[in-house]
Amino acid sequence: MRYGARRERLRATAAERGLDAVLVTELLNVRYLTGFTGSNGALLLRAHGGDVFGTDGRYTTQASSQVPDVELLVDRATVPALAREAVRRGAGRIGYESHHLTVDGLRTLESVLADAAAGGTLPELTSVRRAVEALRAVKDDDEVDALRRACAIADAALAELAAEGALRPGRTELQVGRELDARMLVMGAEAPSFETIVASGANSAIPHHRPDITELRAGDFLKLDFGATVDGYHSDMTRTVVLGGVGGEAAAWQREVYDLVAAAQAAGRAALAVGADVVAVDAAARGVIAAAGHAEHFPHGLGHGVGLEIHEAPGIGQLGAGRLAAGMAVTVEPGVYLPGHGGVRIEDTLIVTDDEPELLTLTSKELLVL
Amino acid sequence: MRYGARRERLRATAAERGLDAVLVTELLNVRYLTGFTGSNGALLLRAHGGDVFGTDGRYTTQASSQVPDVELLVDRATVPALAREAVRRGAGRIGYESHHLTVDGLRTLESVLADAAAGGTLPELTSVRRAVEALRAVKDDDEVDALRRACAIADAALAELAAEGALRPGRTELQVGRELDARMLVMGAEAPSFETIVASGANSAIPHHRPDITELRAGDFLKLDFGATVDGYHSDMTRTVVLGGVGGEAAAWQREVYDLVAAAQAAGRAALAVGADVVAVDAAARGVIAAAGHAEHFPHGLGHGVGLEIHEAPGIGQLGAGRLAAGMAVTVEPGVYLPGHGGVRIEDTLIVTDDEPELLTLTSKELLVL
Repeated sequence: MRYGARRERLRATAAERGLDAVLVTELLNVRYLTGFTGSNGALLLRAHGGDVFGTDGRYTTQASSQVPDVELLVDRATVPALAREAVRRGAGRIGYESHHLTVDGLRTLESVLADAAAGGTLPELTSVRRAVEALRAVKDDDEVDALRRACAIADAALAELAAEGALRPGRTELQVGRELDARMLVMGAEAPSFETIVASGANSAIPHHRPDITELRAGDFLKLDFGATVDGYHSDMTRTVVLGGVGGEAAAWQREVYDLVAAAQAAGRAALAVGADVVAVDAAARGVIAAAGHAEHFPHGLGHGVGLEIHEAPGIGQLGAGRLAAGMAVTVEPGVYLPGHGGVRIEDTLIVTDDEPELLTLTSKELLVL
Repeated sequence: MRYGARRERLRATAAERGLDAVLVTELLNVRYLTGFTGSNGALLLRAHGGDVFGTDGRYTTQASSQVPDVELLVDRATVPALAREAVRRGAGRIGYESHHLTVDGLRTLESVLADAAAGGTLPELTSVRRAVEALRAVKDDDEVDALRRACAIADAALAELAAEGALRPGRTELQVGRELDARMLVMGAEAPSFETIVASGANSAIPHHRPDITELRAGDFLKLDFGATVDGYHSDMTRTVVLGGVGGEAAAWQREVYDLVAAAQAAGRAALAVGADVVAVDAAARGVIAAAGHAEHFPHGLGHGVGLEIHEAPGIGQLGAGRLAAGMAVTVEPGVYLPGHGGVRIEDTLIVTDDEPELLTLTSKELLVL
């Protein structure tokens, strides 16, 4: 169990900032720090130990089994109950997550603290901002293992679908998307990572096309952007193929766009190094596309962190900030989209290491004609 | 399209409260009012018309097609941009959703308004609380239709699984759950409504058991709580069966618990009437269970509203408040759980009408021995 180690990292942050306690309410942050997977839970992390995990009566059994090493507090009004505990245990400066707590939530918290401190000094609430999200950007071994398994399921599901000839002219985008999702579930995914994108023909030029009843047609591009969730961790992969035409070959323009995106994607992967500025990583791939005159056809960032959320820190794009660190899990996903015509995106999930990045999505990136 | 009619209902609320505009940021509320299904969107609803829908560049095409009848504003910082528009168009009192907007979000909004109003009067921000959620509790015909289709898929998926003998001793809870999920997807569901509950034997006594590698055993209870999402609307159904034993019959204790829960569930359904107090509806079912001496074995509320969320208004329980209205979509789901032994829950999704409630989950509620 890594949860104790993760809490120690947050405890160090709390100490640095002079906080007596941190009230973690963002549910994925709570899961990250405790292992709890229910729909209501919060953590009171205390600077000198003696943490308290709170949930409601539906989850008493689950909390005892998933969070055996943290004191349990069961209360329907979970966050107020933890705030009262903080005061009772003498916390004077309490950190909270202002990017997650709602305006109503803060008002409740303030009123609970005022009541609990009646007669004594009112505790001070101060935002820790995205302190837990910052820790989450660097994955530990358990997390990389979950991501590896999530990527392997996505790889296997696509391979099976292709081998069975399910990606053929006449089928609809919706059919293909649902079968891909269903196959990932049967292979052990908890859920698809997000709404699977299946985009064929002209639809492939829409970066985030929702699959519809468009029928696949011979000679068209077919773009599939999808992933599997395993133990809460999300994989993310895009592949673009050409549907077998009469000659069974890609058209010259398709080959040209594909080769350009593949070169940009390789450049982006090559730029993934410890210490690299995320803007420079984006530029490494974007430069390849711009040099070919297609700058305006690549309208999104190069990639993003993946983990308990499908999009998390670090963002890799022109507006990003920060540097890569060993253990970060990121996507590299350039695309070139020619409106009304067709588009290509190629995306992998990788782990940044001191050496070469580890590639988790192993499906071939050759231009396949199915 | 009902979206325009829904916006008119909110406009009436805004007028009643003396607001010039309402900034709707809760994404499902935005979807309800506009039809937009992307991951970033907000609506500036103005008391005298001339609404503005905001999103970012990823969704320009999608917004034009899903929200053709509302002026579109594309900006990466969507909510601040809409706030500036509100000021530019003269809004003095602006409603916002304090149960959804974060503390950081409110600070950004306040600073944007201060800048935008520079030199003029600072607009006043006032919470509309759950005004849109209150509208959402009563479904229109399009919503009931989506719920009907979602429930039909759940019914059909379970029927297929049972007919194929997939619910048999030796299989694990996880296998059954994933096959149920996969089948709903292939039948046209966008996703399962929530993490499917498959609980066998002693696990059936845990109200919200997560399926694990427990093998189904002959003679045990098998409790399935699941649903399908269609057009964003969630179905919710629980059935409890007995796995075929040597004699193929339920044990006397199983029959007794089952009949009790079935009687309570029928009483709860019978109490669903326009104008009924939600506490009284809960009591109608709870009284049956209490009279049999099992009050403490029914530790949760009787039901909840369903729609764009799996749990939404109205709550039907001892701590609920309010009365039922025609068009509300609710669940009725009493349970009796005997720790270490086994439990039964029976749950339907229904629509409250001026006449009998309309039952949407049609799977038999007879005690089936599979």
